[in-house]
Amino acid sequence: MPKNVDLLLTNAIVLTMDEDFQQYEPGAVAVDGDSIVAAGPEDELKTEYTAKEHVDCQGKVLMPGLVNAHTHAAMTLLRGLADDLRLDVWLLGFVMPVEREFVSPEFVRLGTSLACIEFIRSGVTCFADMYYFEEEAAKATAEIGLRALCAQTVLKFPSPDATSYEKALEASQNFIQEWKGHPLIVPSVAPHAPYTCTEDILQATSEIAASNDVPLHTHIAETATEVENSQEEHGMLVVPYVEKHELFEAKVLAAHCVHIDVGEMHTLHKYKAGVAHNPSSNLKLASGFAPVTEMLEVGLDVGIGTDGPASNNDLDMFEEIRLAALVAKGATGDPTAVPAKTALAMATRLGAKALHMGDITGSLEIGKRADLILVDIAPLHNAPRFQRDPEGVYAQLVYASKASDVTDVMVNGQWLMRDHKLLTTAEEELLKQASDYAKKIDAFLIAREQSVLSKLITIGGAIEQESFEVQVKVRVSDPDAIIERITHPDLEILYHRHYHEYDTYFQFDDPEQGQLRYREDEFIDETGECTSVRYRLTMIGRTRERHFPSDVLLSRSRFIAPAIHSLRFYREYFMPESETFIEKDRLRWRALFQGTEFYINLDRIDQPDLGTFLEVKSRTWSQGDAENKAELAEKLIAFLGAETDKTVTQDYIEFVGQSK
Amino acid sequence: MPKNVDLLLTNAIVLTMDEDFQQYEPGAVAVDGDSIVAAGPEDELKTEYTAKEHVDCQGKVLMPGLVNAHTHAAMTLLRGLADDLRLDVWLLGFVMPVEREFVSPEFVRLGTSLACIEFIRSGVTCFADMYYFEEEAAKATAEIGLRALCAQTVLKFPSPDATSYEKALEASQNFIQEWKGHPLIVPSVAPHAPYTCTEDILQATSEIAASNDVPLHTHIAETATEVENSQEEHGMLVVPYVEKHELFEAKVLAAHCVHIDVGEMHTLHKYKAGVAHNPSSNLKLASGFAPVTEMLEVGLDVGIGTDGPASNNDLDMFEEIRLAALVAKGATGDPTAVPAKTALAMATRLGAKALHMGDITGSLEIGKRADLILVDIAPLHNAPRFQRDPEGVYAQLVYASKASDVTDVMVNGQWLMRDHKLLTTAEEELLKQASDYAKKIDAFLIAREQSVLSKLITIGGAIEQESFEVQVKVRVSDPDAIIERITHPDLEILYHRHYHEYDTYFQFDDPEQGQLRYREDEFIDETGECTSVRYRLTMIGRTRERHFPSDVLLSRSRFIAPAIHSLRFYREYFMPESETFIEKDRLRWRALFQGTEFYINLDRIDQPDLGTFLEVKSRTWSQGDAENKAELAEKLIAFLGAETDKTVTQDYIEFVGQSK
Repeated sequence: MPKNVDLLLTNAIVLTMDEDFQQYEPGAVAVDGDSIVAAGPEDELKTEYTAKEHVDCQGKVLMPGLVNAHTHAAMTLLRGLADDLRLDVWLLGFVMPVEREFVSPEFVRLGTSLACIEFIRSGVTCFADMYYFEEEAAKATAEIGLRALCAQTVLKFPSPDATSYEKALEASQNFIQEWKGHPLIVPSVAPHAPYTCTEDILQATSEIAASNDVPLHTHIAETATEVENSQEEHGMLVVPYVEKHELFEAKVLAAHCVHIDVGEMHTLHKYKAGVAHNPSSNLKLASGFAPVTEMLEVGLDVGIGTDGPASNNDLDMFEEIRLAALVAKGATGDPTAVPAKTALAMATRLGAKALHMGDITGSLEIGKRADLILVDIAPLHNAPRFQRDPEGVYAQLVYASKASDVTDVMVNGQWLMRDHKLLTTAEEELLKQASDYAKKIDAFLIAREQSVLSKLITIGGAIEQESFEVQVKVRVSDPDAIIERITHPDLEILYHRHYHEYDTYFQFDDPEQGQLRYREDEFIDETGECTSVRYRLTMIGRTRERHFPSDVLLSRSRFIAPAIHSLRFYREYFMPESETFIEKDRLRWRALFQGTEFYINLDRIDQPDLGTFLEVKSRTWSQGDAENKAELAEKLIAFLGAETDKTVTQDYIEFVGQSK
Repeated sequence: MPKNVDLLLTNAIVLTMDEDFQQYEPGAVAVDGDSIVAAGPEDELKTEYTAKEHVDCQGKVLMPGLVNAHTHAAMTLLRGLADDLRLDVWLLGFVMPVEREFVSPEFVRLGTSLACIEFIRSGVTCFADMYYFEEEAAKATAEIGLRALCAQTVLKFPSPDATSYEKALEASQNFIQEWKGHPLIVPSVAPHAPYTCTEDILQATSEIAASNDVPLHTHIAETATEVENSQEEHGMLVVPYVEKHELFEAKVLAAHCVHIDVGEMHTLHKYKAGVAHNPSSNLKLASGFAPVTEMLEVGLDVGIGTDGPASNNDLDMFEEIRLAALVAKGATGDPTAVPAKTALAMATRLGAKALHMGDITGSLEIGKRADLILVDIAPLHNAPRFQRDPEGVYAQLVYASKASDVTDVMVNGQWLMRDHKLLTTAEEELLKQASDYAKKIDAFLIAREQSVLSKLITIGGAIEQESFEVQVKVRVSDPDAIIERITHPDLEILYHRHYHEYDTYFQFDDPEQGQLRYREDEFIDETGECTSVRYRLTMIGRTRERHFPSDVLLSRSRFIAPAIHSLRFYREYFMPESETFIEKDRLRWRALFQGTEFYINLDRIDQPDLGTFLEVKSRTWSQGDAENKAELAEKLIAFLGAETDKTVTQDYIEFVGQSK
């Protein structure tokens, strides 16, 4: 007696993409409920099953849906915002300012919905996401009916959805608990990258993921600079560094891994971490060539991702698969590297394993969810078809098929597209909303076009200084007494410098622009001689984040850049409304006070003659930490014998009359 | 009074792609006859022109058609024949045998027609072709209405359309004279590559091109091996080598230029040679990364090509443009290298200049032919649109547009596609014919699957020896007399070797398979000691090209491979029907006789005892040269005192009884 099921797909070239790469032609697949109950030769399945719905696949390829192993889906709304720029200019000059201004729950929902349509159209049935307001991404995805690993981002900086990392951790925990067990969504947490997280964040996110038994999604070793910095700051490569901070207690999905060595690959393999390879993004941002062949040889589950559509600039996995196959050949000089069959396995079975979702998707195997697509391999740009070699069909799909050749898409047993027609969503209204966002963002950027920061970036890049600085400043009547106190054994001096500084401040019409400081820093040695000079531009925003008791201030990030041109050049280039000049003598110490690192500046303002000030500063990452440091800064001021009632909250520049 | 013209295209984002990258939005273009009469702001053109036909472009991009700067169009019929293989295996094992068997005028016509449809669909209006039976390519292209530079291939080997290079040169000359002045086709000649041509061919093709004032199309420095060989054989790099042989007397289009240095770039620039960059092909065949940034800096006209669809595997210029932009970034580590605007200029204006057709196509400028396309940049995979930066539209086209976004194509003032509908051709019948070819080719290859050559290739590649060898063999009664003559001053000895050779021949059921020889070559020094041993496999075909007077033979190319396995291995692997063993002592000289290089072998066959033979051999490339050398070989035999009536035409193996 044949068994009755919901759906029988027949007359297909069935590529199971299972470990043995079994193919059936003519082949068939039987689906019941949300799952695959059989895949095999058509005649066998026709005998074994009857079905409520019959689909004749007309000789198309029937294969598992593609798995996009790494993306930031909602960034569809920022596609084409700015291109062909250096990473820092692109990120700090365009993407981050726009995200700060525009990213909201509504933005994420709209952007993710648009991405889902692009995914369906190009045969993606499952993707690994990482963004802000991730619950909105999850909602949009579940509504349209796609499968996703949705990871809530945690950063040490304030982000569009969290003013501190403690809040982001809390949000991640809540998000995971709310969504765990959903038939389509696997919730996850994303410590953004080792260099944008603190060690605390790495440990806390790993614990959240492990205790909830969900994957953890992160960026690892994307650029050579990241590795150099890790070596310098931590004395070790990136993978050992995160291993030390227990990241691998969780099931990790590591995006990029462009700059890892064989030892690191073995570490990843030991912990069963998955890797997402992003060839377009790595090329476009000139990040380097990921060692894909070696990672596969070590046995790692390497999937393929598009990365965010703002740095790609699309979500086309067909393009990405082809690039994975082509770039591996170009980078290794071996035309047999990453053959078509391997590239397609990366985009299906291996990708699903990299997401730690290999038990439910990634191949047409009994018991897995019915996530499948039909691809027409007969159009003119893919004709003729040679059948001599069973591997030929993989080459056809990888080297000649296009996203637009995908005709039908099913996820979890539900049709999302039939014969190019979307069944669970419509795009017109969404496109209109996207266009409205683009207009608003254009207007925002055009208004900023004349901004000092933008102009600073234009002429050679600016580096965002680490954000959050706790600081307190006190007018001092007896500088020598302060210097005396600094030698006290309770204060451990890490280093001491002496500068003579000449600062020219540019002010602008619009005070929102902040000020630009051109500083000439003379380094003075013990004999009082100037040994070298440094020129630096600093953009100082107006914003103060918070004002703690005793006039301790929490200030925002600033942008700095080496000043390679003359003061005259900058004057003509920035055309300031007015200028102010300050000359001062600065004694500077880096010191440990009660286990915490502070900068101590003793500044004698010579021109204009304003007297001497004591400044105490410390960098901070979290709100809790800032509060502790604010208290400690107040104590340090007292310890140094300065009068805490003489605090000032102005910058030196604010004491000085401005000159036209 | 407004001027009346044939066609006015309005409401477009007009990208002229002229030297100033002028854009008009809303813009318009006026066409009269085959030419552009105006491009500018819509309101101006609406005032200045009335038109018989009005086309509202609905906000699409209106730009010059793309120029595919290097391809082998008819190879659409070999798309997907074999992939992920080393170049030699792919070329010698698959492409060349299939071309030898199947390439005919009908094949070229069909393959080129299919390519033209793919071109139209993806916005290509002009392409540079290089193949066999090029008059058929020209006919198919002109019939469909595309523009092309059609170059007839000349090779030193016999090719599907010429048994010798003299014939190929003659055919090129006739082809050029027949097609010169055609409104769509620029006929051309293609010396295939420096290493597949003789110096005579380089000079002769250059002369044909120069005297007819048409471009010359060739491959230059595609692989590092080509450059190494050039250094070794000619003592110079590839560009100086072809310069020496006067290639640059003609207007050259040089495909690839992957491995050229800055000096060579300046040479190309001096002669106004164009370059065709083929990123997909260079990646897929692992040829290397072309120095695109440097070539552009030197001022070269660098176009973009798809190369043949058998090594790509499509003719999609959108993919190629994106790769040109992306790969340049990846290869240089600079994300600002080859920005979108530059990549698009390469695919239009610079490409046309590289083809030496810059005066008639490549940009929307007054007086140029009306070769233009409409591209829809509003589909979801390319939304939203940011308009702040006028360069953004180039980024949209390069990083997010797809070939399928091209809606309309016009060449020479004639519409070839409107709203995705082909107007000058239909594909169904062509696709059926292509499918028939694929079936026949599949059958041919499956039959050959068991062939000795194929199996030889499978286990590690085989190298095709240079073809055409003139040879004559004579039975010798007094070997010492011959050795005596060899010292005669009229013979200049270049080197002398002494071998002891043990040859095992494998024979197969089907004599068409030829024989496989496993040779153990002992090198013997002056004291009679064996100093080293070499193991080599040689596949010896049955074919004799020609039998000259006095039993001088012209033999065909052979395949050789180093024998890295044991005789036992090969016996088990090839499973020969029978085997023959020959042991001989060989004295070998390389000598100049009357200015021509010959190999002289004095072979004493020890087992079986067959006596001694004198063999005289010389490589040759052309029929004329072969005839001269045949005469000279006969003279050399006589000069050495051998009896010319004792010539034998059999191989040694033919004297020997075969053992099972």
